[in-house]
Amino acid sequence: MIVDILTLFPEMFAGPFDASIIKRAREKGLVEINLINIRDFSRNKHRTVDDTPYGGGAGMVMAPEPLFEAMDWIHAHRGRPGRVILLCPAGRPFNQEMAAELARERHLVFICGHYEGIDERVAEHLVTDEITIGDYVLTGGELPAMVVVDAVCRLIPGVLGERASTVEESFSDGLLEYPHYTRPREYRGYCVPEVLLSGHHEKIRLWRRRQSLLRTLASRPELLARASLTDEDRKILASVLEEIKSLIS
Amino acid sequence: MIVDILTLFPEMFAGPFDASIIKRAREKGLVEINLINIRDFSRNKHRTVDDTPYGGGAGMVMAPEPLFEAMDWIHAHRGRPGRVILLCPAGRPFNQEMAAELARERHLVFICGHYEGIDERVAEHLVTDEITIGDYVLTGGELPAMVVVDAVCRLIPGVLGERASTVEESFSDGLLEYPHYTRPREYRGYCVPEVLLSGHHEKIRLWRRRQSLLRTLASRPELLARASLTDEDRKILASVLEEIKSLIS
Repeated sequence: MIVDILTLFPEMFAGPFDASIIKRAREKGLVEINLINIRDFSRNKHRTVDDTPYGGGAGMVMAPEPLFEAMDWIHAHRGRPGRVILLCPAGRPFNQEMAAELARERHLVFICGHYEGIDERVAEHLVTDEITIGDYVLTGGELPAMVVVDAVCRLIPGVLGERASTVEESFSDGLLEYPHYTRPREYRGYCVPEVLLSGHHEKIRLWRRRQSLLRTLASRPELLARASLTDEDRKILASVLEEIKSLIS
Repeated sequence: MIVDILTLFPEMFAGPFDASIIKRAREKGLVEINLINIRDFSRNKHRTVDDTPYGGGAGMVMAPEPLFEAMDWIHAHRGRPGRVILLCPAGRPFNQEMAAELARERHLVFICGHYEGIDERVAEHLVTDEITIGDYVLTGGELPAMVVVDAVCRLIPGVLGERASTVEESFSDGLLEYPHYTRPREYRGYCVPEVLLSGHHEKIRLWRRRQSLLRTLASRPELLARASLTDEDRKILASVLEEIKSLIS
């Protein structure tokens, strides 16, 4: 996969993209990431890329030309990208299904906004997908681009070993994960739950599933409502129901 | 504000924390960020920090000791932090209100998870807040920590100029932003909306508000349902209603 990132701060990507999964994906030749400085496409002598907003108001707006010209350059040198993604607060909320969808593309372009905003003509005529990573205000589109690239890279076949693909499945059933424990068995008086030490695989499996269901119910009921539950899940929830009944009767 | 970040990959933070707003906040002395390598608190000779999960299963789990000892060190050297935040998929979804809440603290600690998960006793006994930045799977807690720190730093008094605090207000009313435009007035045949060139401030204000309302209705109706609308907003929506009525009658 080719990933072109249009940004005013290419130096921000050094740490995150030279570590961990993204580094491995690049070293394996599975992902090629190019950081393109939007400022290189400014035509004026001060290399500015922003200007005051039409209609007045505070702050500066990123001008359309440098971005249109950067996209011309990408078209000329690498052909048409599968998706051109603008990271912005008004975008569609990013989720795991979108990550899986993007992981199937061969060429992605990310546009990182800054300042008060980007001239709307960029969103209208260059961009295929406006994406937000969550309902909070960030300084620019750089961190969101890193987040999306990380989530997408993990899903490209060959990037992770088989181990981690199981994590994937556990998330994709739409529930929160069960709690994990490792050595020591007792630490500062805090013990690992007995069942995990029992060696009884079926009991452990059911305990973990019950934990997943109850945690999701406790913290994110809206996820549970959307999840596709198995017959076993329904049975576990029915037994919880009975327990609660006996508690309040 | 003091921010201590417990991570296995301190080098990942170099780019993002040396740029933009976070850099400015650090240079102004408003934020002190310390990257603490969890591995420095491993007691075994190979400096490992993970181990196999009790109860079996794929992947490795981050052991409790290095994290408990790192927190002991923080307590001894800087006192009790206001919040100890664990970045994990099962956490509470991060949003702008949480960012504002965290910005009022004097000392935050972030714990970045990795591998299959972190021993649950850390979440139970060390952590005050479990936070997720969105419903997608990332390689570790580092990018989420950067996102939260960025969102929080912007809100610390003195970090941003007055200019950007207005952006803040515009987001905190719970609606998506109106579109921005700058020079040139026409670019590749695409024009700036006439009203923005009119110089009529009141018309521009109403047009922008209407854009915000309709964009939120189009892309994120759940935000609109939660937003506190003004009488003017209701009037604008009523006029939209009339327009739609006349279209379908």
